Amino acid sequence: MEVSKQALQNIISDEDRLLFAENIPAEYLSDALGRRTGTADALVFARSTEEVSGVLRYANENAIPVTPRGAGTNLVGSTIPLFGGIILDVSHMNRVLELDRDTMTVTVEPGMLLKDLQAYVEERGLFYPPDPGEKASSIGGNISTNAGGMRAVKYGVTRDYVRGLEVVLADGTVLKVGGKQVKDASGLSLKHLLIGSEGTLAVITKCLLRLLPKPETTVSVLVPFADLGTGIRSVLTILQANANPTAVEFMERKVVALGESFSGVQYPRPDAGSYILLTFDGHESEVNANIERVRRLALDNGAIDYIVLRSAEQAADIWKVRGALVMAVEAVSEQEPVDIVVPISHTADFVRYINELEASSGMRMIAFGHAGDGNVHLCVVRDGRDQQTWERELHDNMEQAYAKAYSYGGVASGEHGIGISKRPYFLRETAEDNLAVMNTIKTALDPKHTLNDQKSYIVGGK
Amino acid sequence: MEVSKQALQNIISDEDRLLFAENIPAEYLSDALGRRTGTADALVFARSTEEVSGVLRYANENAIPVTPRGAGTNLVGSTIPLFGGIILDVSHMNRVLELDRDTMTVTVEPGMLLKDLQAYVEERGLFYPPDPGEKASSIGGNISTNAGGMRAVKYGVTRDYVRGLEVVLADGTVLKVGGKQVKDASGLSLKHLLIGSEGTLAVITKCLLRLLPKPETTVSVLVPFADLGTGIRSVLTILQANANPTAVEFMERKVVALGESFSGVQYPRPDAGSYILLTFDGHESEVNANIERVRRLALDNGAIDYIVLRSAEQAADIWKVRGALVMAVEAVSEQEPVDIVVPISHTADFVRYINELEASSGMRMIAFGHAGDGNVHLCVVRDGRDQQTWERELHDNMEQAYAKAYSYGGVASGEHGIGISKRPYFLRETAEDNLAVMNTIKTALDPKHTLNDQKSYIVGGK
Repeated sequence: MEVSKQALQNIISDEDRLLFAENIPAEYLSDALGRRTGTADALVFARSTEEVSGVLRYANENAIPVTPRGAGTNLVGSTIPLFGGIILDVSHMNRVLELDRDTMTVTVEPGMLLKDLQAYVEERGLFYPPDPGEKASSIGGNISTNAGGMRAVKYGVTRDYVRGLEVVLADGTVLKVGGKQVKDASGLSLKHLLIGSEGTLAVITKCLLRLLPKPETTVSVLVPFADLGTGIRSVLTILQANANPTAVEFMERKVVALGESFSGVQYPRPDAGSYILLTFDGHESEVNANIERVRRLALDNGAIDYIVLRSAEQAADIWKVRGALVMAVEAVSEQEPVDIVVPISHTADFVRYINELEASSGMRMIAFGHAGDGNVHLCVVRDGRDQQTWERELHDNMEQAYAKAYSYGGVASGEHGIGISKRPYFLRETAEDNLAVMNTIKTALDPKHTLNDQKSYIVGGK
Repeated sequence: MEVSKQALQNIISDEDRLLFAENIPAEYLSDALGRRTGTADALVFARSTEEVSGVLRYANENAIPVTPRGAGTNLVGSTIPLFGGIILDVSHMNRVLELDRDTMTVTVEPGMLLKDLQAYVEERGLFYPPDPGEKASSIGGNISTNAGGMRAVKYGVTRDYVRGLEVVLADGTVLKVGGKQVKDASGLSLKHLLIGSEGTLAVITKCLLRLLPKPETTVSVLVPFADLGTGIRSVLTILQANANPTAVEFMERKVVALGESFSGVQYPRPDAGSYILLTFDGHESEVNANIERVRRLALDNGAIDYIVLRSAEQAADIWKVRGALVMAVEAVSEQEPVDIVVPISHTADFVRYINELEASSGMRMIAFGHAGDGNVHLCVVRDGRDQQTWERELHDNMEQAYAKAYSYGGVASGEHGIGISKRPYFLRETAEDNLAVMNTIKTALDPKHTLNDQKSYIVGGK
């Protein structure tokens, strides 16, 4: 079905929030990586729930595909319009609607950026714990992929901070799920079904988020180890000791070296084979007690040093290297970002397997990530390969990597979502019955499959 | 469709795990309250996933209603068989299947009792934080109602400790959802949809639960206030101060008096109008620091005393009264248990409203509960009313109480579930679109509506 200009103009009053066909900038036809581009008939910048609902109702009545979009920082192709139709962008819906100090909640529109939300609440003595690496991502997007990030070890992931949502279903129905109450045992949890659903079931229009009081202090510690296995094994001991770290990241020395040359910061102890980077937050006495607790454990478990980063500048420098890893890789070559998650008991095994795969395949795979929760980030590097070779070799290697992760009881994505780039591996490794149930739900809620069709778990026809 | 003895005997090998019609003990036809009784053609005690699957497949093929059942401690009628058919009891499936110290997870069968799980892990230096009042409830039941309990303020509810599930769908399909990995952004979260679904979508056969290291120490504090409003308002201040209490309970003096005479324990400061009972856990230095932090806040906010319960015996006595409240009420009269949850900013308003309703209606309503999360327990007392008067007056008063809770942004149940006894209020107060989506999912996953039909959110026909 063709998109009618007139119909959309009737829903979106401002001309400048409605673009058609060849006037749609290329960036809106892709994701953050820009490796693949789709096509679309219209791009709509919605400003309200009513507009979102109007567009979805129109699209649904006319079986027009819709691709929802926030800040466009997605890494797995979720924002690529595969079948033409309408790109429904909510990035203009970026206001704070309410701060409620009594219930420690904030209500924001889905297009608000994570960094803006963090700044807004921290200026007011409050704290939004989820901390995905991409701070220019939108909150709606964070919820749609159940984003994780650095502080997940202590605080959990985005799911744990969503108290309520307003969403619009494929047919335009506006639904409010959850609310300011803390507990809920009242009917099916539609809220939890929607979180992480990658825009396949609904478009988020309001986000009611749980906040915490801002921690009094935050201190990071850099712990060098002779090798990665020793470092990661020590993490299990640390996690079992009630020392309550906020973040536990791991980096191999070769990976740090990349980040160093990109960022200009040098890590101490360049003789280390790997580093564990920890953060602790809370009241000062508690933080100090936990730092000493972990010092003993780390040194007893093979750490070759234990460097408490007391100054904020020093900590910022060390984290800067961690934050720059992906950009450091991308500065030299195209890369495929992977965020496989395995049970933490298998993190070291999985990274060792990746090192072997790298050696046997000749394809560079740079591993780092969240040691505290088994979420391993890989940058699989294209280097000088031509397009065809790159695609073929990448696919072969990824088939093996995902199969290994699933054999350890892991899953394809810890925080990026499945989208289209991980979909072949996710579909291959997921039990048919699970896929069937997911698709039954999809088809029940969006019978015409207008919303983000053929992404993530969606298989089969309409 | 009639239940075939032979068909069930083909699935369940032991004769003593299969009872028919008049041989079914009355307790299996009701819930923990025993006020209402259903009928059933067969009672099956399943021992394995295969048996559960076999029974469900048989029932589904023959459109026979199935009522799943665990320990039978449900308070809202979820375990009452409304339409005959089969009672599928999993209480014999009560083993620990695996303790995995590296991932800090335990896998248990659904019939395991909460108290047995708590004892099992605590003996091993581990900790299962969810702590619903009914310790003889089953883990499968806890998951089916997303049970909460005393420690939810710091640790969250059952949902937050379910890493994975094995379930059997209405047609007998065995599904594994979630796993030992910590994060998951891979397709729809069927796990979270199933948690809290009150046996309407599937029967749980295995529970993979997240554990924490056991806290070093636990200390309770009793804080008397002149009146309830002052006490509850002080809780908001305490929660915003990063003092991290594990439990925050509130009790009016008149409620404590009931518990005292039932349990034989006397509370200090009988001149108080209300008490806040707090617990702190963690490392000793941290617990002590938080106790002193809250002491200042409480005394600045109207507390008339601050009694740290240093001895375990003293703390046990004080908690014994809190734990005995429901039994204290039931010793004198039948009662309707209510567990409405409102945004914490409205807890005091809601309790005040209940006091007014009690005064105007002449029906005793005993309020206490979880001040830290707005989860208000009410015992609505029958006293000398005849059956008809009791039912009518209860219904009239509850319609008002639920309407008021929803007007504050609350919901019908924080932890007990909806079942049949809260269903009229839940259906009345929940938006039609939300009910429609829940029912669409139900019908998509259980087209013949064999599983726990017409309970909780389920409306309309098959």
